[in-house]
Amino acid sequence: MIQPNIPETGQPRVVIVGGGFGGINLAKQLKKAPVQVVLLDRNNYHLFQPLLYQVSTAGLEPDSIAFPLRGIFGRQKNFHFRMAEVKGVRPEERILETGIGDIRYDYLVLATGSNTNFFGNKLIEEHAIGMKSLIEAVQIRNYVIKQFEESLLLADEAEIKAKLTFAVVGGGPTGVEMAGAISELRKYILPKDYPELPLDCMEIYLIEAGPRILPALSDLSSARAENGLRALGIRVLTNVLVKNYDGQTLLLANGDQIATKSLIWAAGVKGVPVNGLPQDTIIPSGRILVNEFCQVKGFDNLYAIGDIAQMTNDPRFPKGYPMVAQVAIQQGKLVAANLVKQLKRQPLQAFHYKDLGSLATIGRNKAVAEIGKMKWSGRFAWFIWMVVHLMSLLGFRNKMVVFINWCYRFFTFDRGTRIIIKRGAANIVKLRQSVLTEEAVGH
Amino acid sequence: MIQPNIPETGQPRVVIVGGGFGGINLAKQLKKAPVQVVLLDRNNYHLFQPLLYQVSTAGLEPDSIAFPLRGIFGRQKNFHFRMAEVKGVRPEERILETGIGDIRYDYLVLATGSNTNFFGNKLIEEHAIGMKSLIEAVQIRNYVIKQFEESLLLADEAEIKAKLTFAVVGGGPTGVEMAGAISELRKYILPKDYPELPLDCMEIYLIEAGPRILPALSDLSSARAENGLRALGIRVLTNVLVKNYDGQTLLLANGDQIATKSLIWAAGVKGVPVNGLPQDTIIPSGRILVNEFCQVKGFDNLYAIGDIAQMTNDPRFPKGYPMVAQVAIQQGKLVAANLVKQLKRQPLQAFHYKDLGSLATIGRNKAVAEIGKMKWSGRFAWFIWMVVHLMSLLGFRNKMVVFINWCYRFFTFDRGTRIIIKRGAANIVKLRQSVLTEEAVGH
Repeated sequence: MIQPNIPETGQPRVVIVGGGFGGINLAKQLKKAPVQVVLLDRNNYHLFQPLLYQVSTAGLEPDSIAFPLRGIFGRQKNFHFRMAEVKGVRPEERILETGIGDIRYDYLVLATGSNTNFFGNKLIEEHAIGMKSLIEAVQIRNYVIKQFEESLLLADEAEIKAKLTFAVVGGGPTGVEMAGAISELRKYILPKDYPELPLDCMEIYLIEAGPRILPALSDLSSARAENGLRALGIRVLTNVLVKNYDGQTLLLANGDQIATKSLIWAAGVKGVPVNGLPQDTIIPSGRILVNEFCQVKGFDNLYAIGDIAQMTNDPRFPKGYPMVAQVAIQQGKLVAANLVKQLKRQPLQAFHYKDLGSLATIGRNKAVAEIGKMKWSGRFAWFIWMVVHLMSLLGFRNKMVVFINWCYRFFTFDRGTRIIIKRGAANIVKLRQSVLTEEAVGH
Repeated sequence: MIQPNIPETGQPRVVIVGGGFGGINLAKQLKKAPVQVVLLDRNNYHLFQPLLYQVSTAGLEPDSIAFPLRGIFGRQKNFHFRMAEVKGVRPEERILETGIGDIRYDYLVLATGSNTNFFGNKLIEEHAIGMKSLIEAVQIRNYVIKQFEESLLLADEAEIKAKLTFAVVGGGPTGVEMAGAISELRKYILPKDYPELPLDCMEIYLIEAGPRILPALSDLSSARAENGLRALGIRVLTNVLVKNYDGQTLLLANGDQIATKSLIWAAGVKGVPVNGLPQDTIIPSGRILVNEFCQVKGFDNLYAIGDIAQMTNDPRFPKGYPMVAQVAIQQGKLVAANLVKQLKRQPLQAFHYKDLGSLATIGRNKAVAEIGKMKWSGRFAWFIWMVVHLMSLLGFRNKMVVFINWCYRFFTFDRGTRIIIKRGAANIVKLRQSVLTEEAVGH
């Protein structure tokens, strides 16, 4: 019989759902608090999402941006991890329903993050490629390299063109970085690996619905980034809405059509709420309404942090805080402090977001960075971008492996991990069904 | 329409099937030969199989032991690669049938390697875990870590014991190294990551049908390795045949039973022949009979090298050469030379195997090595083992990443890649069906 088997220690139990930036910072800060910390995640690793696009474009190995959650908390005595899928919550009973059984909690913190938002368009959802999980990134890598390999097998130029045209939707940092990385594949890998392919057949589009890319940055940085992308030969379309996509043809709201086999969707994310919360706590984007202490509306022992939390206590962000790592990290730390205050019956502290700046890289030696009133672009911004990302990566091994890969790429213009890992047909042994994963075979 | 699209250069075309040790050494040696070289492989990478077991046991990232084939031959002008599944051969027409269409050849070299041999036992084949491909290694890693995670959810000690017992069948280097690596997981990772699990529940068996492990090495090295494994707490069973396995209970020929959820099969490999060859050229183990020039019996333009080739010109190896990298490498180089001789109508050179020695590692600071008449064990053998493997790895990036991982592991006793990469349930976009892979999604 499967059961969560979490020992009762007599201390109040804080259950955290999600091992992203919010969840791990919260759990870490509770290290010395008089509570039992139970972290749940469907995966056994923390994923450094900002570098997912480099996995997708054969620049990094998937393992280098994933860090085993048990490794982070190895020495934290009050910490328990369980790999589990969360099904729902029964707040009145203080019970969390999971794939490994019901788990009792005294305090519950939802840090479930976000998922790709296709804004209800089922056809796009079916044919576009999302960019939120490690396996999606590996699939994109497989897919992109397969487009190159398969193009070699085609004689018709229109077919080749559709195979080699990549459309990235969404002009935020993810979309910008993805488009830039694909253009580096075109510049450095395609001519070397596929000299037989006509280079001018490959087109890269970056499509943004709003008036400018990188809307979170200043007009200046935005314009610099756009010029940088254009210089790389990327077709940047702004004020253009995507209407539909059937896997062959991308239809834009202005009537234009683009023949492409590859639509990468970085146009938005939505919260991943948990079943069982009152309907009036969840807004249409899936985020959960919280007060300035991150408490879910109507509860004092139920918190939400990060992408999933919708807090509107700051006039700068009337639609809620941006769904970025910094908000999640700061909210995680705040909730840790507030939980301790709550146990001591002290007044809670309100969330105040400290914006540490924004960064986006366009390609080799090219990036934009804004910290406070300072704005940089070009090589120095690119250097800042690398240092910030390297320092934020968990674990010495991961830092080193990413650093080696970056150095290798910088000096050789090569991308080392351009391999297609596929399931074989025969001779792959079917591993037994597991309660922890939906599928029999691992991946 | 899909077609191989290989240009006709007027030069004789040498088609090589398989990008393993044999295939790539052959193709490299033909760099300056007056021939067109066409390499086919179902994957787009060369896999360094000797380190697969380290991927399986969370010691290395999968990408670090795979090297893109196009990267190896980037500057070789007479070289063409196509990612393709080979279906069969029509020798009388000099046509190779593949998933991307028929390919004409003047000379064909089969270097298709070997696959796990379950010796016809379907039940074992269904329930055991093979160890020949990158995806199998990642699946084993997922599976092993899942056994730990799931053990936490069980209360019954017999059930926990079955989950934590690993049986490795086959006492060759693969089985020895795998058993050793699992025992390191038990020693260093289990107590740290899973302090709640009873350590003594985990058992590791290494089961060999013959009288001693590492039969290719001397009695002395074999005994040293066995003592080393026993010192690590591995139960080494020799002269024991495996009778059956239903996924729960391993039945041995002596009547003993072992309750285990994990049977890792390293007991043998068999050749992967190509359809269309005369029946009398293929022996029951799947290998293809070749003469001393690696020519398939009855043909002068059809060669086989490496694991798939059965050559018995050496009285030291009456049953054919061992299925190891060195034989494949040396045969690949020989066939390259012989193809040039054949074009010049010069007499061909017979294969003479130069045994460079054998190595097997048991664990940290423990290995056995034999080169010529020299025999080492312990730390020095372990050092030799590492240097030989690092030097044999293709590519500077891979060497560096493996080196970093080894250093990290040596100094921290940690294993950095203990992550479970699984397919998600929802929100994984179904990538479109491809001619290059059997399945829609990459992996």
